[in-house]
Amino acid sequence: MADAVPTARARDAFAFRGAHQAGIVTPAQDRLHFAAFDVITGSRAQLIALLEAWTAAADRMTRGLPAGEVGPTEGASSLPPDDTGEAIGLPVSGLTITFGFGPSLFRDDRGRDRFGLADRQPTALRTLPHFPGDLLDPERSYGDLCVQACADDPQVAVHAIRNLARIGFGTVAVRWSQLGFGRTSTTSTSQSTPRNLFGFKDGTANVKAEETDAVAEHVWVGEDDDPQAGWLAGGSYLVTRRINMTIEVWDRQPLGDQEAFIGRTKDSGAPLSGGDELSEPDFTMPGSDGPVIPRDSHVRVVHPDFNHGARMLRRGYNFVDGTDALGGLNAGLFFIAFVRDPDTHFIPIQNRMARSDAMMEYLKVTGSALFAAPPGAAAGEYVGQALFS
Amino acid sequence: MADAVPTARARDAFAFRGAHQAGIVTPAQDRLHFAAFDVITGSRAQLIALLEAWTAAADRMTRGLPAGEVGPTEGASSLPPDDTGEAIGLPVSGLTITFGFGPSLFRDDRGRDRFGLADRQPTALRTLPHFPGDLLDPERSYGDLCVQACADDPQVAVHAIRNLARIGFGTVAVRWSQLGFGRTSTTSTSQSTPRNLFGFKDGTANVKAEETDAVAEHVWVGEDDDPQAGWLAGGSYLVTRRINMTIEVWDRQPLGDQEAFIGRTKDSGAPLSGGDELSEPDFTMPGSDGPVIPRDSHVRVVHPDFNHGARMLRRGYNFVDGTDALGGLNAGLFFIAFVRDPDTHFIPIQNRMARSDAMMEYLKVTGSALFAAPPGAAAGEYVGQALFS
Repeated sequence: MADAVPTARARDAFAFRGAHQAGIVTPAQDRLHFAAFDVITGSRAQLIALLEAWTAAADRMTRGLPAGEVGPTEGASSLPPDDTGEAIGLPVSGLTITFGFGPSLFRDDRGRDRFGLADRQPTALRTLPHFPGDLLDPERSYGDLCVQACADDPQVAVHAIRNLARIGFGTVAVRWSQLGFGRTSTTSTSQSTPRNLFGFKDGTANVKAEETDAVAEHVWVGEDDDPQAGWLAGGSYLVTRRINMTIEVWDRQPLGDQEAFIGRTKDSGAPLSGGDELSEPDFTMPGSDGPVIPRDSHVRVVHPDFNHGARMLRRGYNFVDGTDALGGLNAGLFFIAFVRDPDTHFIPIQNRMARSDAMMEYLKVTGSALFAAPPGAAAGEYVGQALFS
Repeated sequence: MADAVPTARARDAFAFRGAHQAGIVTPAQDRLHFAAFDVITGSRAQLIALLEAWTAAADRMTRGLPAGEVGPTEGASSLPPDDTGEAIGLPVSGLTITFGFGPSLFRDDRGRDRFGLADRQPTALRTLPHFPGDLLDPERSYGDLCVQACADDPQVAVHAIRNLARIGFGTVAVRWSQLGFGRTSTTSTSQSTPRNLFGFKDGTANVKAEETDAVAEHVWVGEDDDPQAGWLAGGSYLVTRRINMTIEVWDRQPLGDQEAFIGRTKDSGAPLSGGDELSEPDFTMPGSDGPVIPRDSHVRVVHPDFNHGARMLRRGYNFVDGTDALGGLNAGLFFIAFVRDPDTHFIPIQNRMARSDAMMEYLKVTGSALFAAPPGAAAGEYVGQALFS
């Protein structure tokens, strides 16, 4: 059932259609443009028409074609083109476009059914709870729909989001959008682990596409997971967290403290218990004062051994968005994870992390959202079609 | 006197030291992180110490070395490293770091001499005048110091700015910072012309490094240009303008109108009078209603023929910074230009453009700054040393 994992060589184009949406187990591209949208119509037909148009445009753009039939420099000069043109001549750059549905698409904030979908709302698709350390900006959180565009060229990712927003004019408005410039996770064993803005390798223990059993167990929603939401089978839950890092304070911490917070060395990324980056941490190995991997280190707090075996497929990106109010950089990690069930695979781990992770002192979560990413669209289908039929 | 133009092959590393600062005629890299700083000390000695430390760090980082002597994973575990680590293992990616001094470094807003530099303030280094269409956000404008970091990998550019900010802690605070993801200009004939977010090629008529006479005439400040500011000879003025594009409105304009606003075709970038991208526009060629290149087209309004022969070396980047208040993308062009004299090479052209350029209807300038970029630092010198000696 799982699609074959494309190799780095085949990265020019990833198929948009398939059993699962692309952009989840796809080897993580270098750049991100993520957008959340509010639906501004009450019409179910208009919402469906949008998903049809988005599907067609995403199918085209991920093949390196213009967003619509009339290319950016084609057609009558008296009409606006169907493509905005800034990607002319650029390679497709591994573009993937991944769609998701937020809880507010199903019910409004008074609980009213918006589009006749309320009885199909997945049980786990609710606004995420407030976690300790959350300082959420509502204007960087939530959303009725989301689109994750990833590519190795940021102009290609921006072009995709911009054209989808253009197509949605009158039906949706951009609620928030986030650019990410450096991926922080590997989703394939063919990739080396990049570094986050703490300077540490990030994503070493990520679920990898090649671990097909783990992907099936931890990422894809199963046929029988949720009787109310059979349409989501083969899909996944998409969690986004905009995590500001107080990098100026972090940078003044001694190297040894930084490594103790993470539980890994800064150099190779090996666990403090020894070995290399891919060695399993030994949480029992004694150090001078307690275990050599501290109990409140990040690697231990989020490790599956302490979280009922739960793992996530992370697909985050670094960001810098100008300046914060204190004259520092507004910078951090735009965390993205795909999980089979947020109630078992995200919320408990996040609670544990918020309570006991030493790294939390240097983090401030300013944005948060949860979406249900439907399965892939087959030929002739639009994305999420099973939800509406 | 002009440095040799490095070819694309030699792009791993550009020398930081030389007659001119790198990052001006250097072939434009793909990514930008630009930061403006406020000096928060009153001490001239501390300001000089900062410029010495910045020079040393920039010299190191542009050679692919860590920002300081103690690398990110070296030294005592009880001390913070001299480098933050997120660029470990990344190629130097053509990194250049270019420094500039704002008018407010010389005199505060009451005209008082801040660091004993007032009598050396270049005559043309003043806050730019208010132009029609300016809707400036002071928090995205001005600054005592600036640093332009350009590289082909955004993580490398961000790493440079972040480490310079770290070194400056207590002496400077980041006033604003801007990421750019797609260059919009070529500064070498070896580069092809990229596209801005209007979908048009941008920078076709830019001053190119290979035009050594034009660079000497239009970019570098001459020995005798300003008796008060001999220290700036071999340097340049650096103009930044954060230009928001109302892309949602632009995208609804017919192709023919878009081309008339620009005065070039969207496809090849040829002037509407014919030929190819590099053909000279024929402003006299008649069209069906006036000249085929409209009088209010961008290419005509800013053309040297209508601006006393003045040309700029532009080095701008596209940006998307989240969302605007109307549910559109906060997107546009972060314009950067290097000119010999803003009074002849920028202000009159900007005034002409603000008054008569058809494209202005789709632009809103939200940030603006002017800096004097000193000449390059020779071995053993710090950047801008001649200003202080």
